[in-house]
Parts: sequence; structure tokens; C-alpha cells
Amino acid sequence: MHKGRMEAFSDGVIAVIITIMVLELKVPEDVSFTSLVAIGPHIALYALSFIYVGIYWNNHHHMLQVCGTVSGAILWANLHLLFWLSLVPFTSEWMGEHLTDAWPVAAYGAVLLMTGAAYMILARLLVKHEGPDSVLARAVGGDTKTMLSLVAYLTAIAAAFFAPYISLGLYAAVALAWLVPDRRIERAIANS
Amino acid sequence: MHKGRMEAFSDGVIAVIITIMVLELKVPEDVSFTSLVAIGPHIALYALSFIYVGIYWNNHHHMLQVCGTVSGAILWANLHLLFWLSLVPFTSEWMGEHLTDAWPVAAYGAVLLMTGAAYMILARLLVKHEGPDSVLARAVGGDTKTMLSLVAYLTAIAAAFFAPYISLGLYAAVALAWLVPDRRIERAIANS
Amino acid sequence: MHKGRMEAFSDGVIAVIITIMVLELKVPEDVSFTSLVAIGPHIALYALSFIYVGIYWNNHHHMLQVCGTVSGAILWANLHLLFWLSLVPFTSEWMGEHLTDAWPVAAYGAVLLMTGAAYMILARLLVKHEGPDSVLARAVGGDTKTMLSLVAYLTAIAAAFFAPYISLGLYAAVALAWLVPDRRIERAIANS
Amino acid sequence: MHKGRMEAFSDGVIAVIITIMVLELKVPEDVSFTSLVAIGPHIALYALSFIYVGIYWNNHHHMLQVCGTVSGAILWANLHLLFWLSLVPFTSEWMGEHLTDAWPVAAYGAVLLMTGAAYMILARLLVKHEGPDSVLARAVGGDTKTMLSLVAYLTAIAAAFFAPYISLGLYAAVALAWLVPDRRIERAIANS
Repeated sequence: MHKGRMEAFSDGVIAVIITIMVLELKVPEDVSFTSLVAIGPHIALYALSFIYVGIYWNNHHHMLQVCGTVSGAILWANLHLLFWLSLVPFTSEWMGEHLTDAWPVAAYGAVLLMTGAAYMILARLLVKHEGPDSVLARAVGGDTKTMLSLVAYLTAIAAAFFAPYISLGLYAAVALAWLVPDRRIERAIANS
Repeated sequence: MHKGRMEAFSDGVIAVIITIMVLELKVPEDVSFTSLVAIGPHIALYALSFIYVGIYWNNHHHMLQVCGTVSGAILWANLHLLFWLSLVPFTSEWMGEHLTDAWPVAAYGAVLLMTGAAYMILARLLVKHEGPDSVLARAVGGDTKTMLSLVAYLTAIAAAFFAPYISLGLYAAVALAWLVPDRRIERAIANS
Repeated sequence: MHKGRMEAFSDGVIAVIITIMVLELKVPEDVSFTSLVAIGPHIALYALSFIYVGIYWNNHHHMLQVCGTVSGAILWANLHLLFWLSLVPFTSEWMGEHLTDAWPVAAYGAVLLMTGAAYMILARLLVKHEGPDSVLARAVGGDTKTMLSLVAYLTAIAAAFFAPYISLGLYAAVALAWLVPDRRIERAIANS
Repeated sequence: MHKGRMEAFSDGVIAVIITIMVLELKVPEDVSFTSLVAIGPHIALYALSFIYVGIYWNNHHHMLQVCGTVSGAILWANLHLLFWLSLVPFTSEWMGEHLTDAWPVAAYGAVLLMTGAAYMILARLLVKHEGPDSVLARAVGGDTKTMLSLVAYLTAIAAAFFAPYISLGLYAAVALAWLVPDRRIERAIANS
């Protein structure tokens, strides 16, 4: 099966996910500067979730670029990734209303954890499909960065129960670490 | 007429359908673990509806892949399918609030029934358009699986009036049965 | 300029328009059959608006298919069409709550009228761009059907002030008349 | 990296942004002509924001058309542009409820300013990527129009604090100035 329509569908779903989050931003209560400042954390959180979804789109794009065809199992692994990603607006909304409470902050991390795991499953299925000597296999390598992110999410989930601000810091740190695009694949293309 | 734009439009509509369902998930009432657990059934139902829409996208993708051109009648049969599919978020929301009541549970099944029937109409028009010796005709065959699903939906609608949990079980069972991608088409492509 | 991205963007916008209308469907008030029946008119109206948006997508698809390139003016005429089309969910929601009141029923017709006029402007710009001997020019011909639709919308707007049901009948009748795909273009392609 | 998927994703995001704004239009309070007139300013503002988003799509389309490949940095500059653009529905909703108040009117301008700046960053990265002798470099030239727009936004933000109607006038004026498609690129293509 050709990968084209899976890419197009993923683009559509991710485009909707990244955009509907803005529907959850409540306009300031009145027209004062104070009420504008009061929604600052919500806008910062919107930016964080936007960056996370953007990272997934970006890496998805890079990874699929060096693939040829896809299988039925890959289509489902991709839908599985999109499912968890689609819950980001949901946990983002809950955490936005309760930035210092354990369960909302942990739930945000849990969805990031599941999304990261789903991405890893998709990556492994693609590597298996492409073969051990493919450009993708060399590019994805040991998945160290993804692994470290999963560890950071787990730490953040645990931290949410005694110091939620540490969790928020970890979520921001992982996002920053991924803002750098995955040069491994660009390099692997250049070397191939 | 070339099928390309019909595929692109269907991808867009299905991407919006599958994603806007998350807008209907209400965040937990407070920050307790109890309130998080309380929305568990809503998340499970979101997953079920996500899987159903995913199944349609998947099978739509498979089916269109072995087609060449489309006709005006096929464009309308496709819009007809998208119409019923777009009602899934609606009946999903109603059933989510009343998991043990007859009419909401029956309505969910009725929309699945109409969606299944619309898919069958589209499949038959495509087979007719492609011709009896086409790859598609051999792949789609006797439609036994679709037929059985329609029977399961009918049973679930009837069961909703005396034992709604049987209906919920049937909805989950049909989804599971379809999670396995339609190997018939992959096989038919391989054999052609 | 190549038409590809204009088609893709239009597909995206129309896919969102046709799908977000379902967000305006309110779930029945309780779990009784009576409350399900009470939302019947809303579902019928959703179907009507879905058909209207579907018709525009269908005809847009047909028309663009016989075009080669587009100009800056055509891009804006296309955005102008999408603007009016995007108001269909809005007037549809208002009319849905007040099916027998003059202004909501007239407003629905006014948006259909402007959408129809915008479509005609786009069609004429495309014909001018393609030239008088193009397949499109022969296919679009005298625009009689579009003209008659505009007359029907005007009549419906006027009728809204003394007999809104006549307006509703006219909206349904025009939709039915367009459900038949535009054979002129298929014929013109076949003859070319 | 090929630009195709970045274009497709941008089309998807912009299509959602431009369409979800209609969800913020509240239907008139009752069925009177007075209440229809009362929402006039909201519809005018919807049209203004629609035009702004349309302008960005249009210019994005023109600019990408003369580009070949994209880099990781360009993908992020593009996401950065989409982020600010996605805040237009948000500030549009706030300003729509308070057309004569300083902070809402200034916030609308601030988002336009950041969007314009993000567009300029993207344009410069693309020019750098294409090289100084590329069609794009000749087409984009000195960016005078973009610069003037940024100055107009800054003026409008300042004016919001003593005469908000001047700000509204400036927002409308800049939109009108950009409605004329960017002939520089069409000309540069023709001359190349």
C-alpha cells in the first residue's frame, strides 16, 4: 500500500487537533489589563501543547519521508498514535484550569507518555517493514531521545503528586529538547 | 472522473469527524481521582467511536486503492456515507450520557446500521463501475462480514430495549472484528 | 498558477464546514422517544444543509476538473465563495431554532443567494480565464440552472414574510434539483 | 525535504482556523430584525478576520510556489506562523464583544503584528534557502508592503488606548491593501 493517503489523513487529523485547542481558550473576563494577564498561563499552556503536537507532526513527516509503502498494521499503529495525540487538547484543558493539582498535571503527562509509546510502536513497525538495512533503520537508531522523553514523562507523573511545578518544568524541557528537528534522518538521507 | 479529489475530501471530512469527538469530552468536575475515574466510561466510548470511524477510513482507503475513476453517482454515494458517519459524534454524545437507557443506545446502533448500509451501497456502485472482473470485485466478494455487522447492529438495537449492556457488548465486538484490516483486498492485489 | 493547492484548500474548508454543523445538533433533552422525535426537524435541517454544502463541493469539483491554471483573481473569487458557504452553519442554526419565523428563514435564503452568486462569479472568471472555446465554456453554457436557483432563493426570501413553509419547500426543492450531478460537464468532457 | 507535505499541513490548519471562527458567531437573540442588525458588527468582524486569514493563505501559496525544498528550520518557522495565525479567532472573539475598549482592540493588533513578523521570518528563511539569485529573492524584494503593515499594526495598537475606531480603520485598511494579490511573484515567474 502506498503511504500517500495515510500521510494526508494524518495531516488532516493533526491539523484539526492543533487548531481546536484554541477553542478552549476562554476570552478574558472583562476588558482590563489584569484579566488579560490572568489568561497568560492558559496561552503559555496552549503554546506548549501546540509545540508538542507540532513536534509530532514534524517527526512524523521526517519518518514517513524515508518510507516507501505501508501495511495494514502500520495504518492501525498510526491511528493509535493519532488517538493519544487527540487527547492532548483534553488533558491540556483540564491541566489549564488546575496548574498546581496532582491529578490534572499527572494526566497531562500520562497522555504524553502514551503518545510517545505509540510513536515508538509506529517507528518500530516501520523499521521492521523497511528492513534492517533501510535508511530509516539507520536514522532511527537506538531511539535514545524517545526513551529519555518517556523517562521524563514518568518522572513528571510521579512528581505531580508532591511538586507539580517540577512536572510543568519537565514538560517544557522535553518540548524544548525536541524543538531541534530530528537531524538523524536528514543526515541519514544525506549519507544514503 | 479521477478519484483523487474524492479521496482528499473524504480524508478531510473523516479527519474532522474523528477529532471533533474530543470536544465532547467534558473535563472532570474537580481535581480528585474519583472524578477522573468517573469520566472513564466517556473515554472508553470515545475510544470505541474513534475505532469505528478509523475502521471506515481504513476500509475506505483499501477499497478506493483498487479503483481507477469515479462517477457522479459514486460521489453522491460517498457523501451519503459521510453524512451517516458524521452523526456518530452526535449519537456517541447522547449514549455517553445515558449508557443504560434504551433510546440512546438504540440510536447509536441505528447510525452504525445506516453507515454500514451506506458503505455497502458505495461498495456495490464501485464494483459495478469497475466491472465484474476487476480486482475490487474479487476482493469485496460476498460482503459476508459487512452483512454480519448489519445483523449485529439490528440485534443490538432490539436488545437496547431490554438489556442495553448486550448492545454495548455487540458494538465493542463488531469493532474488534473489524480491527483486523481487510486482508481480502491486500490478497487480491497480491494475486492480481 | 497551478490549481492543485486551491483545490486542496477548498476541500479542507468545505470538509470543516460540512462537519462542524453536527456540533450544533443538541442531544435530546431526556431519554424518551418523544424527545428523540422532537429533534427530528433539526436532523432534517442538518441533512438539508449537508446536501447544500455537498452540492457545492460536487460542482466545484466538476468545474475545476476541466480547468488548467488559476489566477490571483480566481483565488479571491474562490475565497469569496467559501466565505458565504461558511455562513450556512450559522443561518442553519438560527433557522433550526425558529422554523416558522420570517427573519431566520429569510436569512437562510439570503446566504444561499449570496453563495449562489459567488459561485456564478467564480464560474465566469474561470470561463474567461479558460477562453470561449474551452471545454468549461461549452459545459457551463447559459447557467440556466444557477439562474433559476437564484430566482427560487429570492422567492423564498420574500415568501418567508407571509408563509415560511413555502420557503422551506423551495429550499428543499432546489437541493433536490441539484442532487442530480451536473451532467453537462461530464458530457462536455466526453465530447471533447 | 520536499515542500509538499508542509503545504498540505498548512492548508489543513488554515482551513480549520478560517472556518472555526464561524462557531463563535452567536445567533441573534430573538427573531426580530433588530436582533439581526445587532449582530451586524460581529459578521463584519468575522469577514475582516476571514480576509486576514485568506490573505495569509494566498500569500503563503504564492511564496511556496516558487520554492523547491524546505529545511527543518523552515518547518518550524512555518509552525510559528501557524501558531500566531491560530490566535486570530481568539482575539477576534474578544474584540467582537468589546469593539471600543482599549485592550481587546490592542490585542487584535498584537496578534496581527506577531503573525506579520512570523511571516517575514518565514519569507527570509525561504529566501536564504533558495539563494540570492532565486525567483523568490527577486519577487519578495524589499518587503516594503509587509514592513508598512507592521508599522500600521503598531500604530493601531497605540491608537487603541485613546481612539479605538482609528485602530479598527487601520485593520480594515491593511486588509484592503493586501486584497490585491501579490503581483510581484506572478511577475517574477513571468520574467524568469
